[in-house]
Amino acid sequence: MYHLDQFALMFTDRIRMDAYAAAIQKSVKPGDTVVDLGSGLGIFALLACKAGARRVYAIETNPVVDFGRHLATVNGFGDRIHFLRGDSRQIHLPERADVVVSDLRGTLPLFTHAVDTIQDARNRFLAEDGQLIPLSDTLVCAVVEHPRLYEEIAGAWRAIPELDLSSGLPLVLNGLYCRRLKPEQVVSGGVAWRTLNYTARANSIEHGTVQATVLRNCLGHGLGLWFETELRDGVGFSTQPSIGDTVYGHVFLPWLEPVALREGETCRIDLRAHPVGNDYVWQWETNIPAAEGHGEIRFVQSTFYGSLFPPSLLRKRATDFVPVLNEAGQAERWMLQAMDGGRPLQEIAAEAFRLFPHVFRRTEDAFSQAAEIAEKFSR
Amino acid sequence: MYHLDQFALMFTDRIRMDAYAAAIQKSVKPGDTVVDLGSGLGIFALLACKAGARRVYAIETNPVVDFGRHLATVNGFGDRIHFLRGDSRQIHLPERADVVVSDLRGTLPLFTHAVDTIQDARNRFLAEDGQLIPLSDTLVCAVVEHPRLYEEIAGAWRAIPELDLSSGLPLVLNGLYCRRLKPEQVVSGGVAWRTLNYTARANSIEHGTVQATVLRNCLGHGLGLWFETELRDGVGFSTQPSIGDTVYGHVFLPWLEPVALREGETCRIDLRAHPVGNDYVWQWETNIPAAEGHGEIRFVQSTFYGSLFPPSLLRKRATDFVPVLNEAGQAERWMLQAMDGGRPLQEIAAEAFRLFPHVFRRTEDAFSQAAEIAEKFSR
Repeated sequence: MYHLDQFALMFTDRIRMDAYAAAIQKSVKPGDTVVDLGSGLGIFALLACKAGARRVYAIETNPVVDFGRHLATVNGFGDRIHFLRGDSRQIHLPERADVVVSDLRGTLPLFTHAVDTIQDARNRFLAEDGQLIPLSDTLVCAVVEHPRLYEEIAGAWRAIPELDLSSGLPLVLNGLYCRRLKPEQVVSGGVAWRTLNYTARANSIEHGTVQATVLRNCLGHGLGLWFETELRDGVGFSTQPSIGDTVYGHVFLPWLEPVALREGETCRIDLRAHPVGNDYVWQWETNIPAAEGHGEIRFVQSTFYGSLFPPSLLRKRATDFVPVLNEAGQAERWMLQAMDGGRPLQEIAAEAFRLFPHVFRRTEDAFSQAAEIAEKFSR
Repeated sequence: MYHLDQFALMFTDRIRMDAYAAAIQKSVKPGDTVVDLGSGLGIFALLACKAGARRVYAIETNPVVDFGRHLATVNGFGDRIHFLRGDSRQIHLPERADVVVSDLRGTLPLFTHAVDTIQDARNRFLAEDGQLIPLSDTLVCAVVEHPRLYEEIAGAWRAIPELDLSSGLPLVLNGLYCRRLKPEQVVSGGVAWRTLNYTARANSIEHGTVQATVLRNCLGHGLGLWFETELRDGVGFSTQPSIGDTVYGHVFLPWLEPVALREGETCRIDLRAHPVGNDYVWQWETNIPAAEGHGEIRFVQSTFYGSLFPPSLLRKRATDFVPVLNEAGQAERWMLQAMDGGRPLQEIAAEAFRLFPHVFRRTEDAFSQAAEIAEKFSR
């Protein structure tokens, strides 16, 4: 349930941790109030206390906060760190903070609701003259040569000769892949695409065009993306492949086919990230003028083409869709209604099993669902 | 949404695919009815059609079935393969099948509800003299020497010298890790622990004691687990490390500390896998008699100790817990009630936003939640 080893990967990444530790050390003054946004175990919160923070609000959706509380006590800061479990956008704090520190990124800072969450924290949690960590993230793009990864993605769809699986190809070539790139696989200069300035009002659609010039003759397989962060004035780090492995890894956006490129050739890349639901839809359009070895090239790609949202699901998410519950939905509704403080879980499960025999094959299944609802939704 | 590349990993694993293809080829006769249980894209279903199946029921919870239907049509079997989306244990078929084929495993065959699902399919879907693929899976255990992995797991908790993170150590050393073991990391013979015989009634708790004798002087770091499957008479495969990489990988259960072992020493291992909710709780007890280099050793470990279920969550899953909905639960209940065929999603979201201002910060958040419920629970 905790996947503590995943959290360990975050704080054993020296590139990340050294920079964050320095930024916290320089920003937090004795007596400060600090918010550790998406705190995980509360490692930043502990470091803030070491730097003299009087009070830290550590906000985290993961139940790992229970272990965080234990760690805080062990380290002598149990009375200074307040762990709050939930989405920070739904949480109200009794005071403004001198420092708000966060690392809500996935492979890139454009990750689920991170940008919105930081903006909300800046508006509602941070004092007028408070310090926001990070100040900004810059997304960087480059052309990538990676025959093995490309074959892994594309080759699968011709791997079973007796079956025609070729229609999988356009789907996977419109996918976004989180992998680790080696410096020698980056064949153009890294070009800054967008800077997310967290102290300013952010755009909801990230969009920009970059030109990437290839540095040697190569076979281009697609684009690589990473980021550079400014945690505070003069403190930051980069996840570019030449810096060594970080916990973040890199994003790879494949092209529709490999392109033989020559030193000095320039690729024009129009890149967009559009927030949709809990994720981003990415769009990458590549234009390369005709040259020796290839004609003019234009690839228009999007993770939207790759996701192949089933029409039935799209319909059910339309604003004008009029929903009617199916049997499983009726069972879920009934369980929520039954959780009114009058009956124990076991009784609710037994009754649900009796009422919805097509939904639950065994009472255990009904109990398991009731327990999940109770865990998520009960006081 | 589809993660087609994950499915591709499954069917590009030659060890797995060659064996399954042979088993299907030998088992399916022209005119047969086949069930492809947990079908994914329906690769087994397509192969069954190639072998002459008249009708295949491909059952899968993942929305990838929409792409599966497309693949079936492209390959000329659109009228023979019926994709059914859902949990097979809640699905009724109009006829019995001559062959039921499945690969519901994770790293090991003891994976979520796989054993129960196969048993249910055998009872309700398979004809009296039908063929079940696989017939059985045998779980195999060995002692493993893997200093790098052990340090990765254990070393993290002393990686930040200014903080005391040592209480993470017993948690992560009671964890189960899905990794890839190399043959040279296996330092004892592989010992069969349990055989899951799918044609017989299965036990819900898998329990057994094995003795593993170390083949060379080494530092033992824990246990490795893999499986051998008999798909049908004379057709099967193993995921043992010496066979090469398969898509399944291996399980590593660390010991509480590394043990210097000498050639010929025997470890007695008592191993249990107990199904709890959607997962298994594993327990491994290791006993090694005193020998040159170490005293008598006894490690009693369990993923239960490693999961540290927060007390508040355990309480909310108790049979006698009387649940009362929190505000988020009330909002969820209200939305389910509002989906009665009278109002479009947008109106439901706008009203939910008005009624539950502490739950939804923006109408978009309410809409996103309503759309998720509609997607999951509407007709």
